[in-house]
Amino acid sequence: MATEAAALAEALRLQADTVRRLKQEQAGTEEVAEQVAKLLELKGRLGVDDGRPRFLLKTPKGTRDYGPKQMAIREKVFSTIISCFKRHGAEVIDTPVFELKETLTGKYGEDSKLIYDLKDQGGELLSLRYDLTVPFARYLAMNKITNIKRYHIAKVYRRDNPAMTRGRYREFYQCDFDIAGQFDPMIPDAECLKIVYEILSALQLGDFLIKVNDRRILDGMFAVCGVPDSKFRTICSSVDKLDKVMWEDVRSEMVGEKGLSTEAADCIGEYVRLHGGLDLVEQLLQDPELSQNKLAREGLGDMKLLFEYLMLFGIADKISFDLSLARGLDYYTGVIYEAVLLQQQNDHEEEPATVGSVAGGGRYDGLVGMFDPKGKKVPCVGVSIGIERIFSILEQKMEASKEKIRTTDTQVLVASAQKKLLEERLKLISELWDSGIKAEVLYKKNPKLLNQLQYCEDTGIPLVAIIGEQELKDGVIKLRDVATREEVDIRRENLVEEIKKRTCQP
Amino acid sequence: MATEAAALAEALRLQADTVRRLKQEQAGTEEVAEQVAKLLELKGRLGVDDGRPRFLLKTPKGTRDYGPKQMAIREKVFSTIISCFKRHGAEVIDTPVFELKETLTGKYGEDSKLIYDLKDQGGELLSLRYDLTVPFARYLAMNKITNIKRYHIAKVYRRDNPAMTRGRYREFYQCDFDIAGQFDPMIPDAECLKIVYEILSALQLGDFLIKVNDRRILDGMFAVCGVPDSKFRTICSSVDKLDKVMWEDVRSEMVGEKGLSTEAADCIGEYVRLHGGLDLVEQLLQDPELSQNKLAREGLGDMKLLFEYLMLFGIADKISFDLSLARGLDYYTGVIYEAVLLQQQNDHEEEPATVGSVAGGGRYDGLVGMFDPKGKKVPCVGVSIGIERIFSILEQKMEASKEKIRTTDTQVLVASAQKKLLEERLKLISELWDSGIKAEVLYKKNPKLLNQLQYCEDTGIPLVAIIGEQELKDGVIKLRDVATREEVDIRRENLVEEIKKRTCQP
Repeated sequence: MATEAAALAEALRLQADTVRRLKQEQAGTEEVAEQVAKLLELKGRLGVDDGRPRFLLKTPKGTRDYGPKQMAIREKVFSTIISCFKRHGAEVIDTPVFELKETLTGKYGEDSKLIYDLKDQGGELLSLRYDLTVPFARYLAMNKITNIKRYHIAKVYRRDNPAMTRGRYREFYQCDFDIAGQFDPMIPDAECLKIVYEILSALQLGDFLIKVNDRRILDGMFAVCGVPDSKFRTICSSVDKLDKVMWEDVRSEMVGEKGLSTEAADCIGEYVRLHGGLDLVEQLLQDPELSQNKLAREGLGDMKLLFEYLMLFGIADKISFDLSLARGLDYYTGVIYEAVLLQQQNDHEEEPATVGSVAGGGRYDGLVGMFDPKGKKVPCVGVSIGIERIFSILEQKMEASKEKIRTTDTQVLVASAQKKLLEERLKLISELWDSGIKAEVLYKKNPKLLNQLQYCEDTGIPLVAIIGEQELKDGVIKLRDVATREEVDIRRENLVEEIKKRTCQP
Repeated sequence: MATEAAALAEALRLQADTVRRLKQEQAGTEEVAEQVAKLLELKGRLGVDDGRPRFLLKTPKGTRDYGPKQMAIREKVFSTIISCFKRHGAEVIDTPVFELKETLTGKYGEDSKLIYDLKDQGGELLSLRYDLTVPFARYLAMNKITNIKRYHIAKVYRRDNPAMTRGRYREFYQCDFDIAGQFDPMIPDAECLKIVYEILSALQLGDFLIKVNDRRILDGMFAVCGVPDSKFRTICSSVDKLDKVMWEDVRSEMVGEKGLSTEAADCIGEYVRLHGGLDLVEQLLQDPELSQNKLAREGLGDMKLLFEYLMLFGIADKISFDLSLARGLDYYTGVIYEAVLLQQQNDHEEEPATVGSVAGGGRYDGLVGMFDPKGKKVPCVGVSIGIERIFSILEQKMEASKEKIRTTDTQVLVASAQKKLLEERLKLISELWDSGIKAEVLYKKNPKLLNQLQYCEDTGIPLVAIIGEQELKDGVIKLRDVATREEVDIRRENLVEEIKKRTCQP
């Protein structure tokens, strides 16, 4: 019996281990249980009402639909931006909306928590792109491209706190222009700033300013102020908040949360107040501390060169060398910039105090090397146009102006004056389409003429081609100008030419 | 001792139950264990090599980058498609790339397993859109729109088995045109087919055929053949495979997997062999069984009307009424269609036997009602152009032709004949940009003239504006035609006009 009891006790012990192990393993899967619970809760909440499931009729948090009117604005803005990019000789590329998760890992510093991951449904672990820059670097390394000037316009995704009225979304367009390759200093960098200048001018958003700084100047400043090397990036993130937060708060984050000495923080405080033009560059080149720092000296030297080129481009008056500009992302290595819209002085309307940045970018010479198996570097500099804020501003302007915007290009409505002419309308519109005329027809067998004319008024169609029994006999079409209400008979064989002439389309 | 042994035995039994229970629970979480293993394996495989993590340099499975050459083709195709959509009076909308998961639930039948879910990172459960049709229906219901003609060109996502060389991707563009609203029968439906015809003709992809059928005819056929109501959709899915799989295999799926009687299957087999034109419609309207079925009669009546309109549009010869066409998706309620490219008879090259469908669509009158709180229906009909297969074909054509495609629009390179003229080059190119000229400059302080000319040869830039010391003194620029190598001096103030004239840009 003692042996039996001992054997049982041993079996019990072994089983207890198994239970412990299984329970431990299961602890790691609590997350799954939570997800299941959430799903069940959701299912219960939605329920089934009179046989039809109730849906939440909304787009995901931080996203929006673009209706035809918004799209009309969006396409106008895109066309302005694209024509600028093309004017500067850019090619265009496109990459997938998601990347391998590891492609994005370690590129965005503190912002990495904002990356959208896809669910693991078997296969690769994927994340939605956070910007177009990291995919671009992956593309260059993967295809061993060392020299390209390209633009890329596409949506990116950030699980940020949305502020939709100010154009801050979780899904938003970026319009990126980048120059990759080993070139002489600051020539491509200056072209990127020229592009920002051209686009913001063309969009007529009001007065703007482009702030510039250099990561090397920032790092030199940190070194000079006694910030330990290990804290450079996190202190840089704090400085980056200066466009939204007062210095006092940034300082207390540096000292309180990030453990910086008060002396170092105050030293930084002195520098980040500075902004100016070429004069400030010259002044800092004489700064007894900064001028001793190799990185800062390099950065200031390049900044001087940049200002020379910007003067040749005739845009130096819109550029402000600003030591408080830091940019959030980890991958910048040299010059950085950000464009902000300035408040209109004569603005009577109540508007949000800060319009915020509408373009930004900089130099990132190390990013492609992070992807290359041999660490081969491809220097890059680029700019990203923050199109959503620009849309917001233009949308608000449009709302305010009550201006009627056409959302189609239709040149003519094919209409009938009597009943039973559907076949004739379809035959005529088919002829017009085949000749390249933009034409519509009402999808009714016997629409009233008044309704057909009203449709033109509502949608801005300028011409109506009216078929009637008499016209059919005479081989003519009555062409009506919607604005003037004038009508003339046009021989059917001349109709296409007449419509083209009247709507100024050669 | 006996009591002790009994107590131990009892404890052992209880623990055994616990182990069994825990193991059962864990069986359901095997997937998690697999995921962990996968991660660990991945981590190990990637490792860290000389301090730099090794990356898998690839795009996710089933996706691709588009380089400048591919983009040139893509933009040409898009522009053809968009101009057709606009010719038919369409507005344009855009929706987010992801939707609430529940928005997509229950819309795609057996294909729902292919939906990409996002990871639950707190907040809403999201999925990537599977097509543009369901988001469109959600948009209509959400904004209470009962009448719109719109197009939408955007990427959709399906965790399908990719076949990249045949243009089958997990991320791919759809180009959708839809007409929503209560109209007289088959007029918008006929326009959708006209659009498919116009686009496939304009893209010059070779001969094509548009197959049409109607879900009501299919359902009538199923009823007549004795398929139980509950099996309609799943049998429809089987029929849908007929474009890829032989009838024998479809039949054995129906009978074996789906439990259909052999009589019913053989009855379906007789019908799905039929295809033709208006004559077949007339024949089936006389079919003693089908003509007794209300749904089939309605479908056949509308099919007759559709053919009348297609004849007025002059495209009936490319349309085949085909009883084997089923379309995979659950939401279709009426006419359905699919365009296929036909094999060229005189094709000497080896090509894949089936080119497959390049466009498809149909009527879905119930989908918007699924989203409306009161179930209010908005009838819709639409078409989706399968752009990726078209790209594949055009890309292969381009590869084969070795034709050189320009990937930029640059009109002129600003070059210098001697050293130390960077400033002058920058000043000139800035003038050109400001005048709307598409211009580039090499990003070198002192580039060799030969290298500058070579750059033009490589990228197809037609003109070079050459600055030299003598030209500066004379107030002229030497304008060189890259193709002919002719050079002429142009007064600086006339340069813009001359470039515009030579590159045919008014």
